Amino acid sequence: MFWQILIFTTGTISILFAFLLYRWVIKKECGNPKMRVFSQAIQEGAQTYLKQLYKSLSLLALAIALILYFTLGWETAIAYLFGSFFSALSGYLGMTIATKANARVAWAAKDGLKKAFPLSFFSGAVMGLSVVGFALLGMALVLYIFKVPSVVLGFSFGASSLALLAKAGGGIFTKTADIGADLVGKVEFGLDEDDPRNPAVIADNVGDNVGDVAGMGADIFDSYVASMVAVMILGFELYQTDWRFTLTPLILGAIGIIASLLGMIFVQMGKERDPGKALNFGTIATTIIFAFLSFFALKLLNINSFWGIFGPTMAGLLAGSILGFTSNYYTDIAGQAVQETANSAKSGTAILILNGFSYGLFSVVPSIIGICLAMMAAWFIAVHFGIAGTYGVSLAAVGMLSVTGMIVSADAYGPIVDNAKGCSEAGKESDKTIAVCDKLDAAGNTAKAITKGFAIGAAALTVLALFAAYIETVNLKSLDLTQPEVVVGLFLGAMMPPLFSALTILSVGKNAFLMVKEIRYQLEKKPGILTGKEKPNSNRCIEIATKGALKELVLPGICAFAAPLIIGFLLGPRALGGFLGGAIISGIVFALFMANSGGLWDNAKKYIEDGALGGKGSEAHKAAVIGDTVGDPFKDTAGPSINTLITVMSLSATVFGSLIVRYALWGR
Amino acid sequence: MFWQILIFTTGTISILFAFLLYRWVIKKECGNPKMRVFSQAIQEGAQTYLKQLYKSLSLLALAIALILYFTLGWETAIAYLFGSFFSALSGYLGMTIATKANARVAWAAKDGLKKAFPLSFFSGAVMGLSVVGFALLGMALVLYIFKVPSVVLGFSFGASSLALLAKAGGGIFTKTADIGADLVGKVEFGLDEDDPRNPAVIADNVGDNVGDVAGMGADIFDSYVASMVAVMILGFELYQTDWRFTLTPLILGAIGIIASLLGMIFVQMGKERDPGKALNFGTIATTIIFAFLSFFALKLLNINSFWGIFGPTMAGLLAGSILGFTSNYYTDIAGQAVQETANSAKSGTAILILNGFSYGLFSVVPSIIGICLAMMAAWFIAVHFGIAGTYGVSLAAVGMLSVTGMIVSADAYGPIVDNAKGCSEAGKESDKTIAVCDKLDAAGNTAKAITKGFAIGAAALTVLALFAAYIETVNLKSLDLTQPEVVVGLFLGAMMPPLFSALTILSVGKNAFLMVKEIRYQLEKKPGILTGKEKPNSNRCIEIATKGALKELVLPGICAFAAPLIIGFLLGPRALGGFLGGAIISGIVFALFMANSGGLWDNAKKYIEDGALGGKGSEAHKAAVIGDTVGDPFKDTAGPSINTLITVMSLSATVFGSLIVRYALWGR
Repeated sequence: MFWQILIFTTGTISILFAFLLYRWVIKKECGNPKMRVFSQAIQEGAQTYLKQLYKSLSLLALAIALILYFTLGWETAIAYLFGSFFSALSGYLGMTIATKANARVAWAAKDGLKKAFPLSFFSGAVMGLSVVGFALLGMALVLYIFKVPSVVLGFSFGASSLALLAKAGGGIFTKTADIGADLVGKVEFGLDEDDPRNPAVIADNVGDNVGDVAGMGADIFDSYVASMVAVMILGFELYQTDWRFTLTPLILGAIGIIASLLGMIFVQMGKERDPGKALNFGTIATTIIFAFLSFFALKLLNINSFWGIFGPTMAGLLAGSILGFTSNYYTDIAGQAVQETANSAKSGTAILILNGFSYGLFSVVPSIIGICLAMMAAWFIAVHFGIAGTYGVSLAAVGMLSVTGMIVSADAYGPIVDNAKGCSEAGKESDKTIAVCDKLDAAGNTAKAITKGFAIGAAALTVLALFAAYIETVNLKSLDLTQPEVVVGLFLGAMMPPLFSALTILSVGKNAFLMVKEIRYQLEKKPGILTGKEKPNSNRCIEIATKGALKELVLPGICAFAAPLIIGFLLGPRALGGFLGGAIISGIVFALFMANSGGLWDNAKKYIEDGALGGKGSEAHKAAVIGDTVGDPFKDTAGPSINTLITVMSLSATVFGSLIVRYALWGR
Repeated sequence: MFWQILIFTTGTISILFAFLLYRWVIKKECGNPKMRVFSQAIQEGAQTYLKQLYKSLSLLALAIALILYFTLGWETAIAYLFGSFFSALSGYLGMTIATKANARVAWAAKDGLKKAFPLSFFSGAVMGLSVVGFALLGMALVLYIFKVPSVVLGFSFGASSLALLAKAGGGIFTKTADIGADLVGKVEFGLDEDDPRNPAVIADNVGDNVGDVAGMGADIFDSYVASMVAVMILGFELYQTDWRFTLTPLILGAIGIIASLLGMIFVQMGKERDPGKALNFGTIATTIIFAFLSFFALKLLNINSFWGIFGPTMAGLLAGSILGFTSNYYTDIAGQAVQETANSAKSGTAILILNGFSYGLFSVVPSIIGICLAMMAAWFIAVHFGIAGTYGVSLAAVGMLSVTGMIVSADAYGPIVDNAKGCSEAGKESDKTIAVCDKLDAAGNTAKAITKGFAIGAAALTVLALFAAYIETVNLKSLDLTQPEVVVGLFLGAMMPPLFSALTILSVGKNAFLMVKEIRYQLEKKPGILTGKEKPNSNRCIEIATKGALKELVLPGICAFAAPLIIGFLLGPRALGGFLGGAIISGIVFALFMANSGGLWDNAKKYIEDGALGGKGSEAHKAAVIGDTVGDPFKDTAGPSINTLITVMSLSATVFGSLIVRYALWGR
């Protein structure tokens, strides 16, 4: 009872806090008239996109809910709708505040970092706290009402379906706009980044928000929920007599929220005035506070094997921190990989692309070793203290994700300050103000790199937990690689992430082509745009990006939802187990490689723009711009969607597991 | 006894035929003085490279043989040396004839296709017949002397070690030279392909031979032997009382040789004068002849389950043909993928690269489905007729590879006619003669595309067979994906092909940089080279490519040989089983994707050069040239080496399997 109150209270407090911060932020002044216009345009663009997206998605959600209703009963259907709604809601809130905060941060930047930084961080925290608050409260409610974790699985499936499409759709939107704006505006007409004469500039800024705020939020909401549900299912199946095993993830989640709230106090720049350090300091503080609090909470919970629970949780927490901070290594602008890639521009564009590609492949190595170590540690600590190994691995995922509140806050900070820079340029503010925004922005890029490593690591452990939950649900005694259907499943699963990547990347290429045509058309037909006499038609660009993204979602969406069911019902539960294994393995390889190659090319370009190798306008710069454009859909469209793809497929397999066992044509 | 005589006789006949063809070819006239000089330079360059390569490799082979001697006894050590020697020998013979044939073909082209085509095909057949002859004879000898298939495994390991390094080394060599020659010669100085003033042109032509003749030959030699050894081991372990199960693969090999020899009769251009059709006709004829002959031979062998042996063999044969011919689809110059990729050059270089990348990822889908179908068919036919499923899958690999003699002949034809074209240009022959060479060359490109699909499919089934042989050797009852060490192994294995690709691609980038510097230096220091008054220093370029390739082989070589042993001895045989599974899965994905992306960009460039989108010199062409350069190391260095990588790792695991079971630190 005490624990239930704790969970509900912290969930509520988190949402309440988010609401208070929201109120605090929107009361701030929102800048000069030009900024307002710019910011207003972004807000409207983002709203248009989100409305259209949610309209399509709610139809899809209803359709899937109906299927769930007829196959698994109304409880799962309701939980599914609930999950999609909560995920959409926190994404919507985060987006709303992000698009409102940008001009306010830009205005506060006039008074220096000291005023602007807290404003931008706490705007991001609205997102962070909504995500964890709604996720925890939602799961707790569903569990409280229906009493069985398998219904909470429906909640997770709902959140995950929404996340996949929000993430992939946002990724296609943002890169369509970004590539279009760059290719024509920057390269052909020589306009600066964020030049308001570029018709695609508003769409590009909207893209930052829909991709990085709403998309990333939905992604981590999804992993957060899925990891906890996996533990709940395993706890329920393995230790039916002891309800504490089912509640543990929610308790850890509640403690994570408390730790994040306390950790935010430590987000202080101090004397050095370094926003990057402030963010890292907050993350580290949250991690340490979580370790302490969970130690005492688990002692108090008095589960029969304290270390078997606490140990794996800490293994995950530690691995998360390490993965996050080391993911920086390959994409760090001061690092060897970025600089060697930039230098290779001297041998031409092709070599630059080959080098970035190769270093991206390299980056897979330390991350996979890290994930393996975390998994082994969690498993063996758990087993050593008498807890099931699969339960231990799943707890590691929960441990890693426990500090999500803080991580998402720091991440959502990124696009807010990025947009703030755009606002202050659009508002023609002084160079000093723009410099302040620049400093805020640089810290945002580091936070983003850390979150990406963290998100992939967390997704990896989460899908491993879901994999265990699937095997438990369909009651497989073993999943034996000496059986042909398992090997066939493994092959077919491994094929999915490349297929999904190909579909989303081609979509970006196709849409960018339309965008390029539109921008060229506008700038050529109305020469007044370039002289400032005419206004560009930004809405047309937003429309192209929105329509394109929604249209192009259909095929990858069908692949993700249908493939596991087809494999399961045709080839049976063992083949589906192999399929999930294959998808997880190749998914993690592709997600890491794409995210890091993309980040690396991006920073190689920045490195040259900072003056190396002849700086802007040099041949090396031109090569680096092409590299960056190749990397854009890698790091912001395909790469980050793969996380969600493998989560959705694992959830779909588990949700329909009982039906597959009963009705599979073959291999039952 | 009859069967032993058959095997030894056909092996000997194959080698004898190769020798006779060799004699026939070198008696032909070898062209005008300029051609001779050009051809001589290629011959010498190739000899220099091979000598250095084999010198290094023989040291390595001795070192590994010593290790084998101390751990597994002298029999395996001897067999290992034997395997490396035979593989090297057939590579050497193939190279020698290829480099001697080029000028002779160019000279024969003066008399038209009718004289030049048979000469070039039968020059390639020297390679094809040596490969199968030496492989079959070598295995049969080792089996005859030592009586146990586990020693033949040593032979296969030797062939495979050599193949890995010959393939990767050749791949690095050829792309270093190719990229260097293109980037400086073509792009910066506007020279044509094969312009003798370009200092890297000889190195580039040498590269075609060492990469495509010696490398591809060693690769297929390796798969051919490995697939047969896997069946022999499974036959020996599963059916110890019946020696026919151990001999079956050698019998099928012997029949394959007879079929290839008979099939060569059908390599006739007929009235249409189409060399491409002649090659395809020969391949189809060989396949049909093999099907007939093996039907009767297996009937005669009178094994207890005829269909359980014949069925899987045919499944493999069929799958091989289908994979080979459909691999053409994604890279066909008249196909949608190539033309859409070429068209995307209108949106800039980055989009062209993204599209080629995406279609490469797509191409993984049909091939993996094809491999899965072949595997399932072989397994279930075998099981249905009372044969072990793993034995059936391995037989499918042998069935696929049975027509190797013909396939390698058609493949080696490619670089010979490619070089012949270079010779006729260097010899300043008439446009008519050059047109004949062009026609020969176009057929070579198709043959090459078919071989690549075939090689990857064959390697996939072969490593699956080796995987089964490994599991049988270390006597694993199951390889269960619910065990943590198997999952960890799977992750670590999946990491190897990307790591290996990264290492080899970076090597190409690094060496190409040195090559670019050297060519620029020569052309700038000695302006007489461009006017034809001074001779370029080609040897210096060959030296750079040779030294670079050998130096850069060390790191990937260590990874390939050491990784399975480290995993095996540290984490035990189950983890190593997972490791092999992971490597196979991700290896096949990466091999297919890289080979096809590379081929696609290559043909997109050719499509534009044929006049589309503004033709040569247009912006689209510039973009396509960059795409082609990115694809070069994909399709000729990293992609094709991955086949051999996964074979070597599987063999190394199986060879040391018994030791790993005994001495692993953990998980025994």
